[in-house]
Amino acid sequence: MPKSSNTYELYYWPGIQGRGEFVRLALEDAGARYVDVAREAGGMRALERLLKDPGPAASAVPFAPPFLRSGKLLIAQTAAILQYLGPRLGLAPATDAGRLAALQYQLTLADWVAEAHDTHHPIAVSQYYEEQKPEARRRSQDFREQRIPKFLGYFERVLARGGKRASYLTGARCSYADLSLFQVVEGLRYAFPNAFARAARKAPRVLALRERVAARPNIAAYLRSPRRLPFNEDGIFRAYPELDAPGNARPKRAPIEPRAKRK
Amino acid sequence: MPKSSNTYELYYWPGIQGRGEFVRLALEDAGARYVDVAREAGGMRALERLLKDPGPAASAVPFAPPFLRSGKLLIAQTAAILQYLGPRLGLAPATDAGRLAALQYQLTLADWVAEAHDTHHPIAVSQYYEEQKPEARRRSQDFREQRIPKFLGYFERVLARGGKRASYLTGARCSYADLSLFQVVEGLRYAFPNAFARAARKAPRVLALRERVAARPNIAAYLRSPRRLPFNEDGIFRAYPELDAPGNARPKRAPIEPRAKRK
Repeated sequence: MPKSSNTYELYYWPGIQGRGEFVRLALEDAGARYVDVAREAGGMRALERLLKDPGPAASAVPFAPPFLRSGKLLIAQTAAILQYLGPRLGLAPATDAGRLAALQYQLTLADWVAEAHDTHHPIAVSQYYEEQKPEARRRSQDFREQRIPKFLGYFERVLARGGKRASYLTGARCSYADLSLFQVVEGLRYAFPNAFARAARKAPRVLALRERVAARPNIAAYLRSPRRLPFNEDGIFRAYPELDAPGNARPKRAPIEPRAKRK
Repeated sequence: MPKSSNTYELYYWPGIQGRGEFVRLALEDAGARYVDVAREAGGMRALERLLKDPGPAASAVPFAPPFLRSGKLLIAQTAAILQYLGPRLGLAPATDAGRLAALQYQLTLADWVAEAHDTHHPIAVSQYYEEQKPEARRRSQDFREQRIPKFLGYFERVLARGGKRASYLTGARCSYADLSLFQVVEGLRYAFPNAFARAARKAPRVLALRERVAARPNIAAYLRSPRRLPFNEDGIFRAYPELDAPGNARPKRAPIEPRAKRK
């Protein structure tokens, strides 16, 4: 399939990686032309206008950012955007079965991301973290002890079944779901450095996948660029030390270099 | 597209509607042949076996039920299952834009469902409701006052933009996303009768859609059948009066009949 010569318009809150980052990674990896609309002058007004009323000609109504404009299409929901972009960017499996698998893995990552978000907002997105700190501590403990290991173990299992041949979730080729798994790992390393490092000891394949994705030339260039926003405490993944597990002798954030030698 | 002559195998926890119900409604509406595997003798063992290890030939690995077996495909994640089934059951729009819209609405419904679940489990799915009751009260208040109106208003807006012509989310024809919106409304009427009745006054189009779906012959027959499990307090939507808004003079559950005359 020929790559589209479209210029995509990505609409997402400026200032955070958030869910927009899953779309950015796909666009960047493919070297696609896109505008990160809300980070341009006047872009926030454009975002808010579309969110309020996309007009009768829009192909669908977005509930929340991110959403993507591609020609006449307006698409919201991260997984739907990626399901659309995947084949166009060369980031989807070739078969229907493979594409369904990529969508399914993306949706499981979306569940994981929502749970990561709720560690600091277990009561209400409409209230500040400071208004729900005791609850956040309780929810984070469960997330660290039950959920991170469960999701990590699951993706480790998915990666293991391909044997030596398969390097990615859906086989030998990288899909958008792999880029998204990379992003979740990065987010968890930032937000829960101690808990993640501990749980990841049992997930060497996930860590190796993270390195493979980070070493892809376009991704490596993107991560070094100013387009890659740093993680911060307005986003989904927040480094609140009180929500992480206590540290031990190990350094707080494992210094995995993008091109570090694999074990 | 010809309807498949496949017998689908649906794998979901027996005893609750849960997320499996969104798949059941699509299969039932289309009159598709399917086995609700875990409700058959020995079915729970089959479910658990696939969940533990679907084998090297499986097209993907499920993280959790529901998952569907269709020929050689194994598909998990409700929205991915419906994205697969939709065209095969005559429950998806004909155009790519329409199918993306249906997926996007389904994913927004999935977010709403996850939030409804977390009203009674704001801290940990691994703990009982009784262990997180004060937090559940706080989260439910926000869900009732902020989130139900926000989601309802959104779907009302989606339904309004088609004008008189469009009766469904994606246009003149019913898609799986409409069946899912019906189910979310039913769940909210069960779990939050007072709060929902109040918020729904501003969402007449959503209520009318609910009636139209309930009146579809195969859905009406299904709802009367023993295959339709009742809502209960093991599922996603739970009738805990302490989490609902206080009642007033109105009856606790609005007696909307499937075929009641529309206003």
